[in-house]
Amino acid sequence: MENEQQRQVYFLSNGTAITAETLGLSLLAQFPDHQFRIRTIPFVDTVEKARAIVEEIDRGGDASKQQPIVICTMADDDLMKIIKRCKALIIDPFHDFLPRLEKVLAAQHLHQPGQSHRIVNPSRYDSRIEAIDYAMQHDDGGKTANYDQADIILVGVSRSGKTPSCLYLALQFGIKAANYPITEEDMESDRLPSPVAPFRERLYGLTTDLDRLVSIREERRPGSRYASLDQCRYELRAVEKMFQLHAIQYINTTRMSVEEISARIIRDNDLQRVETH
Amino acid sequence: MENEQQRQVYFLSNGTAITAETLGLSLLAQFPDHQFRIRTIPFVDTVEKARAIVEEIDRGGDASKQQPIVICTMADDDLMKIIKRCKALIIDPFHDFLPRLEKVLAAQHLHQPGQSHRIVNPSRYDSRIEAIDYAMQHDDGGKTANYDQADIILVGVSRSGKTPSCLYLALQFGIKAANYPITEEDMESDRLPSPVAPFRERLYGLTTDLDRLVSIREERRPGSRYASLDQCRYELRAVEKMFQLHAIQYINTTRMSVEEISARIIRDNDLQRVETH
Repeated sequence: MENEQQRQVYFLSNGTAITAETLGLSLLAQFPDHQFRIRTIPFVDTVEKARAIVEEIDRGGDASKQQPIVICTMADDDLMKIIKRCKALIIDPFHDFLPRLEKVLAAQHLHQPGQSHRIVNPSRYDSRIEAIDYAMQHDDGGKTANYDQADIILVGVSRSGKTPSCLYLALQFGIKAANYPITEEDMESDRLPSPVAPFRERLYGLTTDLDRLVSIREERRPGSRYASLDQCRYELRAVEKMFQLHAIQYINTTRMSVEEISARIIRDNDLQRVETH
Repeated sequence: MENEQQRQVYFLSNGTAITAETLGLSLLAQFPDHQFRIRTIPFVDTVEKARAIVEEIDRGGDASKQQPIVICTMADDDLMKIIKRCKALIIDPFHDFLPRLEKVLAAQHLHQPGQSHRIVNPSRYDSRIEAIDYAMQHDDGGKTANYDQADIILVGVSRSGKTPSCLYLALQFGIKAANYPITEEDMESDRLPSPVAPFRERLYGLTTDLDRLVSIREERRPGSRYASLDQCRYELRAVEKMFQLHAIQYINTTRMSVEEISARIIRDNDLQRVETH
């Protein structure tokens, strides 16, 4: 019976709830056979809101006869006291971890909302916005004249994950990432495409499995030559040959999320992240 | 003395280390008077890597005479055993929280890498990529003919944070967000700009403080009319008047990060997030 019903899980915070959500999803991923019904509630920043949520949680728990799970990062002690009254399992990393940090740092923690998702350092924040602007302008082979400013230039066939990865690198890490699509014309030559040739050491290749590429392209342009098995096979072989010939590092992104692709690009190229939080 | 030196902090994981980093930054934000030197190490997925990191942590700790801090999410028990040997303060949310979840769920956790940043459900993942494509194509007033597909349309003056917010909504939550810049021509009329007028209920306004707008624009086009105090003041007043006249919800984004703007947009518009992890 237990598994037939989805277990209700809440991610709560007085702020954006990004931390509660990120931690919570990682924990829940350790129970792949369970179904969870997730509700993220950010900005629980008044006594009234906290009380209303406790009521909602308890009502849901009583109705489903399953104890709900609450993962929360409340930086306000008074609000946390209210949340604690609910009958859920409460996972509260601030409560468990801040005292240990206080001991090592010989300091008290704030006991009020921190600045983890607010703008602390405007110049760092501006460098993040600059990276986003850069990624937008240098997407899909745009503005190739500015590649000297790129931290990294992703290369690969159309629909191998270049654009999302560049945007994520910019948004999350303030990294200036351009991307250049290898065209059929480029593939006919043994040389690197001329816009990227001077920047060989900043190039990083993305490739993907043939069937995945066909299915993504098929959804985009059904029945086209662009989406055909032969065309996709030709392009993938040609770019992988190019990567190998010019000793360009590359990864197969088939089963990878944007987060994972980005983390690998940072590691493989030893890129410096700008602290954007 | 304690505070003169930066305390070394490590975010470790066998995966992307996004969870360790997100949680870690939230915890450290509770100690704003301390300086931290942060090193994120993802993909610690072999015994050799784990051993090398323990050695590095201990060497750094010995040299600085300050106990390092390690925040880690290792889903592999054997690797975690190795990490635990180091002389740092270890914050290990998996160790602390998974047993409590096991009890409530009456189930064992995986004891191996979960899928929290891998592709679990390809169709959900595709909807995220679709949202990114949508944001790219509908940035800055592009392709206004497709606004009927938008979950949300951000409006505001140039440089009020529309583009980063749209990209974040797409990447993080799979939400289709377009953005439309209010032009001077638009400001001269009491009507809503014609491309967005049919979608009033999907509009959401971003505005910002005058001095912040001037400084951002000044960096972009120094000495221009675009960046002048008078022009910025005129535009901000005109859009706020427009938002009020047409009962469009809006927020002042001056001190907000992209994460915070996005979380508020989701809450204020009751948007459905697509589970993208």
